[in-house]
Amino acid sequence: MSFDSAAFKQQFPLFSHPENAQLVYLDNAATTQRPQCVIDAMSDFYSRYNANTHRSSHRLARAATSMVELVRGQAADFLNARSRDEIIFTRGATEGLNLLAQSLGKTLNPGDQIVLSAAEHHANLVPWQMVAEQYQLQLRFLPDVLGEPQLGQLPHMLSDKTRVVALSAASNALGFRVAVEWVKPLLPEHCLLVVDASQRLAHEELDVQALQCDFLVGSAHKFYGPTGIGLLYGRAESLHGLPPWQGGGEMIANVSLTGSDYALAPHRFEAGTSSLAAIAGLGACLTFLQSQDRQAMATYESHLTRYLHSELTRLTETMPLKLLTTHRNNVGIAALVCRPESSLSVSDMAHWLDEHDIAVRVGHHCAQPLMEGLGLSGSLRISLAAYNDRADVDALIQALEKLPFDADALARPPSAEGEWVGDDLSSVSLSDLADQPSWQKRYRQLTRWANLLQPKPQIRQTENRVHGCETEVWLVHQQRGERHCFAVDTDSRVIQGLSVLLLVLLDNKTTEQILALDVNQVFMDLGLEKYLSESRSNGFRALLEQMHDLVRSSVRPD
Amino acid sequence: MSFDSAAFKQQFPLFSHPENAQLVYLDNAATTQRPQCVIDAMSDFYSRYNANTHRSSHRLARAATSMVELVRGQAADFLNARSRDEIIFTRGATEGLNLLAQSLGKTLNPGDQIVLSAAEHHANLVPWQMVAEQYQLQLRFLPDVLGEPQLGQLPHMLSDKTRVVALSAASNALGFRVAVEWVKPLLPEHCLLVVDASQRLAHEELDVQALQCDFLVGSAHKFYGPTGIGLLYGRAESLHGLPPWQGGGEMIANVSLTGSDYALAPHRFEAGTSSLAAIAGLGACLTFLQSQDRQAMATYESHLTRYLHSELTRLTETMPLKLLTTHRNNVGIAALVCRPESSLSVSDMAHWLDEHDIAVRVGHHCAQPLMEGLGLSGSLRISLAAYNDRADVDALIQALEKLPFDADALARPPSAEGEWVGDDLSSVSLSDLADQPSWQKRYRQLTRWANLLQPKPQIRQTENRVHGCETEVWLVHQQRGERHCFAVDTDSRVIQGLSVLLLVLLDNKTTEQILALDVNQVFMDLGLEKYLSESRSNGFRALLEQMHDLVRSSVRPD
Repeated sequence: MSFDSAAFKQQFPLFSHPENAQLVYLDNAATTQRPQCVIDAMSDFYSRYNANTHRSSHRLARAATSMVELVRGQAADFLNARSRDEIIFTRGATEGLNLLAQSLGKTLNPGDQIVLSAAEHHANLVPWQMVAEQYQLQLRFLPDVLGEPQLGQLPHMLSDKTRVVALSAASNALGFRVAVEWVKPLLPEHCLLVVDASQRLAHEELDVQALQCDFLVGSAHKFYGPTGIGLLYGRAESLHGLPPWQGGGEMIANVSLTGSDYALAPHRFEAGTSSLAAIAGLGACLTFLQSQDRQAMATYESHLTRYLHSELTRLTETMPLKLLTTHRNNVGIAALVCRPESSLSVSDMAHWLDEHDIAVRVGHHCAQPLMEGLGLSGSLRISLAAYNDRADVDALIQALEKLPFDADALARPPSAEGEWVGDDLSSVSLSDLADQPSWQKRYRQLTRWANLLQPKPQIRQTENRVHGCETEVWLVHQQRGERHCFAVDTDSRVIQGLSVLLLVLLDNKTTEQILALDVNQVFMDLGLEKYLSESRSNGFRALLEQMHDLVRSSVRPD
Repeated sequence: MSFDSAAFKQQFPLFSHPENAQLVYLDNAATTQRPQCVIDAMSDFYSRYNANTHRSSHRLARAATSMVELVRGQAADFLNARSRDEIIFTRGATEGLNLLAQSLGKTLNPGDQIVLSAAEHHANLVPWQMVAEQYQLQLRFLPDVLGEPQLGQLPHMLSDKTRVVALSAASNALGFRVAVEWVKPLLPEHCLLVVDASQRLAHEELDVQALQCDFLVGSAHKFYGPTGIGLLYGRAESLHGLPPWQGGGEMIANVSLTGSDYALAPHRFEAGTSSLAAIAGLGACLTFLQSQDRQAMATYESHLTRYLHSELTRLTETMPLKLLTTHRNNVGIAALVCRPESSLSVSDMAHWLDEHDIAVRVGHHCAQPLMEGLGLSGSLRISLAAYNDRADVDALIQALEKLPFDADALARPPSAEGEWVGDDLSSVSLSDLADQPSWQKRYRQLTRWANLLQPKPQIRQTENRVHGCETEVWLVHQQRGERHCFAVDTDSRVIQGLSVLLLVLLDNKTTEQILALDVNQVFMDLGLEKYLSESRSNGFRALLEQMHDLVRSSVRPD
């Protein structure tokens, strides 16, 4: 067998949809696409044998139950578990890790230690923080070099209090694999190894017996399966005696008003009706993966990852960009940041790529401690799947090469000392934007406006941060008589441009004027609906809401 | 507008699938079916704009985020919440109740009281039991009459320690509505009202403001939506300050290694990637429901519920059955039990109905305390949806009228005193079963064999209960030299018949013979594959496994 990426891609209907004719999808670490067989399996469940499972009295319920248990067996095979009873269905890796943290937490004693790394996704960090606070446990973190946890240091961190070591098998932000297979032999008896395999299951076959892990989690939507379903593997001996987490139907053996006996694993950990259609889709996904030559697929991805890195390296030689990743032992992720001398930010780059229908992700990638350890607030992440090819990489590189670093990226003049003053935006005419004939032109007009916003380091303080906004944006406000004055600062060129627009509309206006203005309508008129539909986290909406909040909270009854 | 059940039903593809031409689906309280528009919305998501949400940098992520927030707004409208921020997406009602129990539990003090009723589904009981144990809280239960909680008694149960009252708005086992809209005015300040609306959302429009509840949960799969998605409504004031439950991506504002700040509701309670496709399906489901005349639909269901009850009442006049429910104020559920003089059990009835492709449910319906309060181990539940009609009820009644109460239901002779003895099964010939030309005939042969099993009240002790089996079955074992002897007792005629078959195969045999026999193959040869594919809970498989366990555990090394 071998691997044919083009044939593989043809099985994913999203790419052949007319709307997506130009799409280059490089956001696979966030979620992959689904092959037709997965979509069909879910429709087939609903159209043919949908019923609730267990305690069945009828044909459809039996069919649904058989399907669930069949997929459980497939999942056991997929991970090389010894028994299907070692497989628990969860909503995804996050739920699996919360289940483990909460259930294991109940079995630990105050002072017991949990070892993590600073490279963990928040899903493998926050649940342990919560449980540590609840049960007075200690969290310890493996030292790292440029973000990569140093497993060699692990023996020095272990003590007879170390009860859990929980590590990602690959970084979702930087793509490096972690050799979790080395860990278990280092651990003292009764110390459990939890592996977050979210970023590896799409890229290679994992064997829980070879990894010698006690628990392993993953999300189907990251390996071509449905959203809303994930796997938690638990070694039978490690699951045995683990207290349940959620209570409800299916997970009990016997219930009275005063207390309940719980079922054995896996049902003990599956309260309520499962995501049955998603389980049917997961089954189809596992069959689909099994029909691939996984080894050839991994080799293909590895070559593509190397090509991506070599092209990006070439780009960094001529542009003020820095590549944070290398292709070695990498699950297909590249991360870029702007060098300090650049006047663009990664948000601007992502907007630019989006204009070319190239889907990448920007931000801290739910790995804030890792990014902060590297001195970064975020990066631009490019993540590959097996349906990507060199043409996708080439499209990315060509778009990045056209980034307007030169024309629009004039260094802004240094800021004034002391108190902030609002920017002079008297030269701005909204018709300059409205008259632009295309998206791309409007985008360029916004970045030209961005130059009108002076840097204001003096307002970059925590209390001025705009809430709910991924991009760092600072906003200050002052009431002068009847009127409200604002100033904004941010590194994102697009948010700078949008801020100019907002300031033209709202700065130096009265409360009544500000609250009466239909900003949405103005944006629609200017052809900027896109920024209206953005999630809060992209900045514009959060900024507008915070302006409104400041105005409202300054209107006090006499 | 008005309601046309036949036209409504045509929108559900499962009913027009050739495999289901004869199906009469009366298990809607477990899960409803889905209209085509819901299935299509999920396929459309995957085929056109699948991406992960939030922190988006690209077109597909924006489209996915917009969809999620649009559906959140639809859900707010559906429940008449004041804001979309009051809607949290969960996997289903069970997860919603676990979230509430765990998050509220953290805010309570030892000795605080939680008031429930004995009629709760396990999902509204077990999570509170768990949290009560964890935080030393007290659970109190409303008195009931024939299972119905007496809200009039509530004022006598309240104290300044009462912090939560959590009630189902309708019983999933007996169908009666509970007037939860009366409750909030009775409660002291700072006492929260939690409503489990799982069994009402399919049948009527609910208004959280009119109900004056603080929290309300439901599962989409019980109101024509997808599996794996549910709603948790939380009144803004009641959500405010509620600590989060699961940790992970999306629910945080800021994460460092030592601690995290959490986002505001609703995102604070939505850790990890949501069930995005299911949310798309839920959106289509809410649009679908909104296009119905809900009032006319409710009237139709109410008439059908009355017809069902009048027909079942007629049946109980001639057959040894008892109807536990009345049509008044009922969400479409009827529950039947066998009268003591009957030699059939509800499991037998469900098997019989299944032979006629009539889907009902049997067991304790995840409401063990309610059933035990009524002196019952289970019932046969018939539950209606708006696509059911009189023809479905007529088919049910006709099948029940043909129940072989007379021919095969001879009273079994009284049992012998003292020790158990195995049954004399020398008259059984397996060919009697193999020669039967149809399923129905084989079923009758099994129930004829059932008469050979003598009642053995002396073995009906907890230690002899077969584990993991919904139907009550008792099994005893004795090793006599090289051979193993067994005896079985149960009220289920079908399990009696299957037990006779198992005993003929396994009783009075050596360990080697027992473990060598391929029971699965024998069952296949006898045309009984169906019982092989049953979930353990239906009895046969659990019985066989327990026999094997007893044999294995008696084989000890010298």
